[in-house]
Amino acid sequence: MKFKYPLLIIFSALFLNTFSQSNKEDSLMFRKLYEEAMLKGKSYENLEILCNTVGHRLTGSPQAEKAVELTRKMFLEAKADSVFLQAVKVPHWVRGKKESAKIILAKQDFKTSTDKIVAATNRIYSTEILALGGSIATPLEGLRGNVIEIKNLNDWDKIKKYQVEGKIVFFNQPMNAKTINTFDAYGPAVMQRSVGAIMAAKLGAIGVIVRSVTLANDNNPHTGAMRYNDSIPKIPACAISTKGADLLSKLLVEEPNLEFEFFMACQTLPDVMSNNVVAELKAESGSAAKVEYIVTGGHLDSWDVGEGAHDDGAGCVQTIEALRILKAVGYVPKRTLRFVMFMNEENGLKGGEEYAKLAKRNKEKHIAGIESDAGGFAPDGFSFEATEIQKQKLKAFWKYFIPYGLHDFDRAGGGADISPLKDQGTAVFEMMPESQRYFDYHHCDLDTFDKVNKRELEQGAFSMAALIYLISEYGL
Amino acid sequence: MKFKYPLLIIFSALFLNTFSQSNKEDSLMFRKLYEEAMLKGKSYENLEILCNTVGHRLTGSPQAEKAVELTRKMFLEAKADSVFLQAVKVPHWVRGKKESAKIILAKQDFKTSTDKIVAATNRIYSTEILALGGSIATPLEGLRGNVIEIKNLNDWDKIKKYQVEGKIVFFNQPMNAKTINTFDAYGPAVMQRSVGAIMAAKLGAIGVIVRSVTLANDNNPHTGAMRYNDSIPKIPACAISTKGADLLSKLLVEEPNLEFEFFMACQTLPDVMSNNVVAELKAESGSAAKVEYIVTGGHLDSWDVGEGAHDDGAGCVQTIEALRILKAVGYVPKRTLRFVMFMNEENGLKGGEEYAKLAKRNKEKHIAGIESDAGGFAPDGFSFEATEIQKQKLKAFWKYFIPYGLHDFDRAGGGADISPLKDQGTAVFEMMPESQRYFDYHHCDLDTFDKVNKRELEQGAFSMAALIYLISEYGL
Repeated sequence: MKFKYPLLIIFSALFLNTFSQSNKEDSLMFRKLYEEAMLKGKSYENLEILCNTVGHRLTGSPQAEKAVELTRKMFLEAKADSVFLQAVKVPHWVRGKKESAKIILAKQDFKTSTDKIVAATNRIYSTEILALGGSIATPLEGLRGNVIEIKNLNDWDKIKKYQVEGKIVFFNQPMNAKTINTFDAYGPAVMQRSVGAIMAAKLGAIGVIVRSVTLANDNNPHTGAMRYNDSIPKIPACAISTKGADLLSKLLVEEPNLEFEFFMACQTLPDVMSNNVVAELKAESGSAAKVEYIVTGGHLDSWDVGEGAHDDGAGCVQTIEALRILKAVGYVPKRTLRFVMFMNEENGLKGGEEYAKLAKRNKEKHIAGIESDAGGFAPDGFSFEATEIQKQKLKAFWKYFIPYGLHDFDRAGGGADISPLKDQGTAVFEMMPESQRYFDYHHCDLDTFDKVNKRELEQGAFSMAALIYLISEYGL
Repeated sequence: MKFKYPLLIIFSALFLNTFSQSNKEDSLMFRKLYEEAMLKGKSYENLEILCNTVGHRLTGSPQAEKAVELTRKMFLEAKADSVFLQAVKVPHWVRGKKESAKIILAKQDFKTSTDKIVAATNRIYSTEILALGGSIATPLEGLRGNVIEIKNLNDWDKIKKYQVEGKIVFFNQPMNAKTINTFDAYGPAVMQRSVGAIMAAKLGAIGVIVRSVTLANDNNPHTGAMRYNDSIPKIPACAISTKGADLLSKLLVEEPNLEFEFFMACQTLPDVMSNNVVAELKAESGSAAKVEYIVTGGHLDSWDVGEGAHDDGAGCVQTIEALRILKAVGYVPKRTLRFVMFMNEENGLKGGEEYAKLAKRNKEKHIAGIESDAGGFAPDGFSFEATEIQKQKLKAFWKYFIPYGLHDFDRAGGGADISPLKDQGTAVFEMMPESQRYFDYHHCDLDTFDKVNKRELEQGAFSMAALIYLISEYGL
């Protein structure tokens, strides 16, 4: 035999060598990114600034515009190669004067055992509500009516028009506490909020009360988006806190003819112009792969309560931080990296749609979209939607994350803002943090900066940067 | 051939059938335990009662005795088959009057450019401290001295007596923020707290200031246990907050001759009698395995700051809850189950030692000890110490936990209170929750009930009950 080692072995050895070499380099890069995030992280500081100087920032509000300018500057400070704004036409809903609501049990004079008539007064319970985003207002004097309670959405089909007509429908299906990952419990429970007003109005209801979509038991109503159908009358819809819902439910047993009265002054104004904020890290000049784009983002808008800290201030500052730490460790990407503050995820998705439209028009081939929009908690893994071939490739990526506490790579799903890119064949990813606390704060006054832990937020930013790095190096 | 199927196949089929049957039963039991914890859980309510009606409960304090009585009742409400107290002689250290401390930079008159003398005054900075548990007091008028800062414990060997003599040693090594699991960063940083006073006094120091062992950057000092060596002079030792430590460090650069003055009134009183609270679930009467014991616990004492919510109120109420849910789902154990509120983990471990001593004396063969003492956060897995054969067996257990979000079964270690059982061949386990927030609250005023999330706490209680169930069914 001419060769001491057969060719196959030589090739294998070369291959394995290259492979273990890149394995080692990748592990080292993970370590560098982690240390940069944990030791010199800016995400927590940036979140404090966003929450404390801007606060909540509903699409169309002056705060949303302030947030555009603030995060544009943060991208520059993070040393983006370029930052630009993408104009987006967005809806403009305003809450107006603070809502109010009460439960009224009519007075019932009663006879004592000695036939004496005792005059009673109405029993009135005040309860906290929030208009659902997109709802019309009630009349100025408020809307008052009897209430029909729906404890389980599956029962809706059995409800007849005569039971609903002229009444306020009270959708009171709780989130399922038995579900392990809270996001799995959100979907089934949020339906009543999204389309409850359509369902109820179809049967002649005059208003809708929706149990807040949270697993917490407290007095905070949680708002969120709702829809109308133009062919069906629009009726006012509000969220009631879980404690308020339980009280109303209890009182309905005592007095089925009780009345609910609520006042809301919200309205939809004409669309306005706003912006996505887009930053770029350019690919190394010689890279053939630079025509491929990887976009990472969070949404800049929030509901008009709390400070939008977890939803989605966290995702925004993590996106900026992912850019910062990739640059800070000296990484020069093989592919073009985009980092986006998407406008209007909460009530329109106009920012995500506009980004995808422009990507298509400009023939920017987006191979991957990565979003953080599930809170700034300790990262557990990534959910994703990709082809089978891509999934095989991704398997080799996930092992790098295990030492950093990420372990869950089995869930399907990507973020809302990057979903419009799927039509262009983009694989989509969402960072999945520990889910237990998210819905306690979601869309309510409790979503404030103090609910965010510095290290957990930073670990999320690291995770995003690390995934961007692997996709940038190896493609999909 | 007489048999249509060879015997091997028949046996295999029987075995597999039994195996998949028990697989299914175990999965069902997990589900039952989970639902009981999440839907009817009492751990959160019990923790609120413990934190709000008792509060912190240092060994020897009246609150500790109140907690003994309270948790004894909670065990009864959880339907323990029996509850009894184990008398334990415990140390009794008291903090006394609130500590105070200041950093003093002596006045330095200075000449202006026109040779005018400007008289300066002392610059004084107040800073928050806590006496370390076990420390002696300072003199009544306080202890004042120059300061030598040790930024890295590895440098200690190079320090000479003349550099330390008559001074206050300031141990300022931070917890390592680069470490992924915060418990891995605790060990190296806690040494200065545990034995700093011995190290410093050996070289003639008059006092010790220790940087709080936390990754948070705030004004809360974190206390904790410290030791003396009887052959070396005892000197007062305090913890300074991380912000205080950073300030002191900065001022030392400006003025190496600054002085630190602190006052502490703490003292060690004579030992007193206290109790472990022990509950039992009896094994089914016919079970041959009932001579084997499985003990599960948390420690009832806490430091005398905050409310001892995460450390270790969480572990206590989870222990009670593990008993409650096992009983509530109708589980009758094959082995004898013990549930213990251990007294005096923080500054003596006398409860754990006494429990092990009695187990030995009574010839109770403890096959497993399970502890929860790492906070009431979402459970990530279990650490454990077991024989190789037991580890093989345990591998079959862990798969049941994966759907519930537990994934980490690679860490070594068991809880402190159950560690004295190891001499008797007991395998030890500790529930490992998500670790990022723990040391933010640990041993300081921030460890209060509001820092605990209901679902996370309940998931921990479920995890413990589930592990107890598997070991009770299959042994080790």
